[in-house]
Amino acid sequence: MILSMELGSAGYDIVLERGCLGRAGALLDLNRRVLVVTDEGVPARYARAVAEQCAAPRLYTVPQGEGSKSFPVLEQLLKAMLGEGFTRGDCVCAVGGGVPGDLAGFAAACYMRGIDFYNIPTTVLAQVDSSIGGKTAVNLGGVKNIAGAFWQPKKVLIDPDTLDTLPARQRSAGLAEAVKAGLIGDAALFSLFETEDPANRIEDIILASLRVKKAAVEADEREGGVRKTLNFGHTIGHGIESVTGLLHGESVALGMLPMCALPARERLARVLESLGLPTSVRADPEAVYAAVLHDKKMANGAITAVYVETPGGCLLRPVAPEALRAAIDTVVRP
Amino acid sequence: MILSMELGSAGYDIVLERGCLGRAGALLDLNRRVLVVTDEGVPARYARAVAEQCAAPRLYTVPQGEGSKSFPVLEQLLKAMLGEGFTRGDCVCAVGGGVPGDLAGFAAACYMRGIDFYNIPTTVLAQVDSSIGGKTAVNLGGVKNIAGAFWQPKKVLIDPDTLDTLPARQRSAGLAEAVKAGLIGDAALFSLFETEDPANRIEDIILASLRVKKAAVEADEREGGVRKTLNFGHTIGHGIESVTGLLHGESVALGMLPMCALPARERLARVLESLGLPTSVRADPEAVYAAVLHDKKMANGAITAVYVETPGGCLLRPVAPEALRAAIDTVVRP
Repeated sequence: MILSMELGSAGYDIVLERGCLGRAGALLDLNRRVLVVTDEGVPARYARAVAEQCAAPRLYTVPQGEGSKSFPVLEQLLKAMLGEGFTRGDCVCAVGGGVPGDLAGFAAACYMRGIDFYNIPTTVLAQVDSSIGGKTAVNLGGVKNIAGAFWQPKKVLIDPDTLDTLPARQRSAGLAEAVKAGLIGDAALFSLFETEDPANRIEDIILASLRVKKAAVEADEREGGVRKTLNFGHTIGHGIESVTGLLHGESVALGMLPMCALPARERLARVLESLGLPTSVRADPEAVYAAVLHDKKMANGAITAVYVETPGGCLLRPVAPEALRAAIDTVVRP
Repeated sequence: MILSMELGSAGYDIVLERGCLGRAGALLDLNRRVLVVTDEGVPARYARAVAEQCAAPRLYTVPQGEGSKSFPVLEQLLKAMLGEGFTRGDCVCAVGGGVPGDLAGFAAACYMRGIDFYNIPTTVLAQVDSSIGGKTAVNLGGVKNIAGAFWQPKKVLIDPDTLDTLPARQRSAGLAEAVKAGLIGDAALFSLFETEDPANRIEDIILASLRVKKAAVEADEREGGVRKTLNFGHTIGHGIESVTGLLHGESVALGMLPMCALPARERLARVLESLGLPTSVRADPEAVYAAVLHDKKMANGAITAVYVETPGGCLLRPVAPEALRAAIDTVVRP
């Protein structure tokens, strides 16, 4: 199955196919210098399998976790490329979850002002969401994704077989982004979570989620408008993530709840419970609120948030600080 | 005088007008948070004058010189913006030469994946060349401009009055880029340097130089082809610059000489002498050669260089390593 992201000259194909990681050499142009970036949490054999299909691979493994999305680690990647004599015609390939994807994508965006980037996501989160759309970034001063680039990959290979090695907690957290896609843009996808075991339908879930994201990105590559709907649950979610240490998907799960109208909220809570995702968390609500205000979606006093009245559609609405503070209280308990 | 850079949705105006720095508030949208970036070599009153025209300015002065084009300094700028609560709707404004321009432009390109950037160049080099075209970068591992972005400014204000305070050596070095523009694309501009005192014709020189650059950038924003002609003199020039500590323009002056056919080379040498620019330098030619090979224009063994047969036009031609080594010997004397 191939999905084409239509972005003019920056368009690219997304290949969704069991076993495609093993065919990377045929599907991508790896007949050049390739910086293969992975992290210590990803089974090493995935990145090795990709490296073995490259003419001149340089495998770079960063520590697991958001801490690797930093300028010092970015500099290390760029220096590794420099040391190997990478030119504008060489490329970077991420193998793993959102961390190597965001980091390696930004390295590709910066190096010599931009070289080719491939992404081979191996987590649910990256396969349903972060690997497409071209957002790359590192963190700074405690704020997520504050420095980065819109830099589209040249191709994305999604191999659902790689999910077999994913820990259950990460799998559930990743599915939160698929639930999000259903809530904001695909009622049938959301219903699937209410009626079936997602483990049996993972390829359909990935495909449907990617279609929601693809439509938003094609309409608004640089997030001037409709692409913001993909941030559903992320305003409060990012705040929870930075304060609690919950996984990104777990935090987004919590962040979505207060942004749903009541019947939808109850349905969402049941879906989250069925996935083993949290519906509340113990933390300091004031600290979460402070983190939200510090976050980048803030603009001149007003915060624009995404709301879901009925699963399958959403709207952008400004939210007053007091309403936001009260919303946090419904999921964050001191 | 307004020149419009035609780059589709990334297009912008270049205002060339005596005194326009004092009208920045009317010409630019400064009614927001503005990071004003300058360096210690620029008269402080220029950046102060701009800051006074902003609704919410944050003035940031970096040390003079290429050393400020680094990731640590870039991080400081981004943290300063973060500390002031800059959002996607705020902007960055460079006031000075190529260093604050390249650095501040990259900071604008990165912050929240890209915010508005204005450039107010106050050196000859920046006014005739580096302030337009959207190249931004920092240095890394001893290699110039290795990490950066193509990020076009929203507007460029060129105020020739600011050149009154420029030291003579920097003025001459900057004119080397104007001589370059004449050699590669405007025979009349080159002739002007042979027949007149450039001090009397500075506005015409700036305008003609910008027109040559504008045409190359419009045809090829991301330097896939014809824009490479703007790198005339820069292959060997960058090598000389990194080894000798000469100014950028002085190094480019030297780098252009071996890339001219003989009659043009003699004419160029006379022009450089009239401007007080070097036509040879004492340094280790091997070290210069090593630096050139380390430079980013290298691609898989062959180097593409720009040649001038007759002033006013140029061609791209692959150059063998031995020919490059011999060319260096004609301007670098041990």
